[in-house]
Amino acid sequence: MNLRTPGPTPIPNDIMETMMNPMIDHRGPEFASMLPRITDNLKTLFLTDNEVLVLTASGSGGLEAAIVNLLSPGEKVLAVSIGSFGDRFGRIAEVYGAEVIWLRKEWGLPVLADEVGSYIDQNPEITSVLITHNETSTGVTNPLQEIAKEVKNRNKLLIVDAVSSLGALPCPVDDWDLDVVVTGSQKGWMVPPGLTMISMSERAWRANATAKMPVAYFDLARASEAAKRGQTPWTPALPLFYALNKALELMIDEGLESIHARHQRVADKVRTEVMAAGLSLFPKDELYCSNTVTAVNALDNMDIAEFRSEIRSAGVIFAGGQGKLSGSIFRIGHLGYIPDSEIDEALQVLRKFFK
Amino acid sequence: MNLRTPGPTPIPNDIMETMMNPMIDHRGPEFASMLPRITDNLKTLFLTDNEVLVLTASGSGGLEAAIVNLLSPGEKVLAVSIGSFGDRFGRIAEVYGAEVIWLRKEWGLPVLADEVGSYIDQNPEITSVLITHNETSTGVTNPLQEIAKEVKNRNKLLIVDAVSSLGALPCPVDDWDLDVVVTGSQKGWMVPPGLTMISMSERAWRANATAKMPVAYFDLARASEAAKRGQTPWTPALPLFYALNKALELMIDEGLESIHARHQRVADKVRTEVMAAGLSLFPKDELYCSNTVTAVNALDNMDIAEFRSEIRSAGVIFAGGQGKLSGSIFRIGHLGYIPDSEIDEALQVLRKFFK
Repeated sequence: MNLRTPGPTPIPNDIMETMMNPMIDHRGPEFASMLPRITDNLKTLFLTDNEVLVLTASGSGGLEAAIVNLLSPGEKVLAVSIGSFGDRFGRIAEVYGAEVIWLRKEWGLPVLADEVGSYIDQNPEITSVLITHNETSTGVTNPLQEIAKEVKNRNKLLIVDAVSSLGALPCPVDDWDLDVVVTGSQKGWMVPPGLTMISMSERAWRANATAKMPVAYFDLARASEAAKRGQTPWTPALPLFYALNKALELMIDEGLESIHARHQRVADKVRTEVMAAGLSLFPKDELYCSNTVTAVNALDNMDIAEFRSEIRSAGVIFAGGQGKLSGSIFRIGHLGYIPDSEIDEALQVLRKFFK
Repeated sequence: MNLRTPGPTPIPNDIMETMMNPMIDHRGPEFASMLPRITDNLKTLFLTDNEVLVLTASGSGGLEAAIVNLLSPGEKVLAVSIGSFGDRFGRIAEVYGAEVIWLRKEWGLPVLADEVGSYIDQNPEITSVLITHNETSTGVTNPLQEIAKEVKNRNKLLIVDAVSSLGALPCPVDDWDLDVVVTGSQKGWMVPPGLTMISMSERAWRANATAKMPVAYFDLARASEAAKRGQTPWTPALPLFYALNKALELMIDEGLESIHARHQRVADKVRTEVMAAGLSLFPKDELYCSNTVTAVNALDNMDIAEFRSEIRSAGVIFAGGQGKLSGSIFRIGHLGYIPDSEIDEALQVLRKFFK
């Protein structure tokens, strides 16, 4: 099967094979020598000197970690949402008692930097901004660099869901001055799901020191302390750490610029083919189309479930729409491991269906 | 290396190989057909008709899930602790604002049923009891069946950390009327770390409906709702689900009674050999020695770190002591995958060291 969902992605064999490595003592020397290699390579690929921690959980667990380690009940935060993952991020903050001010955009649109700036100006008491870099549900990438400038000009903490962007799309953490950045192993990293990686700036650690939300499993201070000994606070999902270790080596060998260029090229090809097939893109402005996932509008009278099932019987798996977009769009994932042969096969099946 | 820690355990090849299976759409038909097989087999092995849910997290995440889904801030709970995992369980409840009444025993001892009963009688306002079935840090198994009777006679909710017991030691969930039971993939289940499995009684679901602790990633009601569609709320760690699926089939083929008998026989052998080597068991009463992990006292002037490193250079890995037992005991794991050849090799290395 040619899996073209926006995560999990197919995994190269070199990486898959590492999962056959035997179990080790997670408090022993092998793990203690592997973990710093992983975090050093993550820092290289996050383009940051900030600490990067790896937790055993899916990306949504990483979003929760970012919130509960940084905020306090009653604290005012701005949640910027352009789709279902943006909604999820803000809702987690609400669950833990933050006072969330929402900046919601129509799905299919990005948020623009001046909108974020003026929302903060209207609500100067907010301490932090939650934002999705790449909204997987709508296939839209926010202009994070410009947004970050507005947020940092106003001296607020910036907490970024980069689950489906980091690794695949440019997101230089230090250059853009991003305080907390969360990503997930099954997206741009060519690793199966089950790990979430989080960077924390100095400013984020200062917020952590006074944050009052309850935190146990997702305790980043504890993870940081354990990392100094080459350990994790709780038993790590070893096969996924093996896979991440290998994937990071492959990514560093290829180089970030080359990885980003590859994603740009493949995304351009996918968008061109989608439009050539007579379909239209869900994002309302091509300038903000995601280079990791393409969201495509259903044609009139098109049954998305039936379409996906026919495409599947030709060996290709596309994702459906999430939440209120269920039944009205489908999505093509092109992130992480995206060999031309697999992308071309998927596009050929698509073309055949609509010819 | 012969890994003899109390989890992660070695994994049989048949199970390891499943992790090479390709990634699939976690919202697609393959996962939807695998998940019910996993949960049905878990119910068979938990000996329960209660719902069993699988979360992507280590066992400590499962403990947190049990607490935040069942309790409310300010609620009075009894935390029974006979070691560091008992302490951890109660501390999570404190972090989330429960009013925890502690019943702490000297490490090396079990808690007895009448002690639990009389603590509840002295604190009748408690709603729930948190207890560790098998305390990995001290190698002691609590007499859970008798304790459960006392708790249920007093009509309290019983929340059990069975992370290092279930699968390997008898723990019939329905017969003993256990409301919430948490276990971890890397213990008795022959699966790498990264999954936690939790059963919930009807009574537990009723408590869940009114529980007020904040819950997001670990939301069991949401996991239950997703399971009805053959899904998990967040992206599952697929390779570990593949491994669990296979491991459960192997365990059901072998049969629970045979698995328990095997653990009993191996544990007896380990204890006999440890004593024959001139060492003493850390548990103060042999009646409550764990059949999954043997905790052994250091001899006078014995450097545990050096001992473990010498044993390691002979190809065998034992665990050290945790927390306040660091440096004063070592631990031999014998749970999950315990082929006689590996146990015999480990014991031979031990014998040689002390001869």
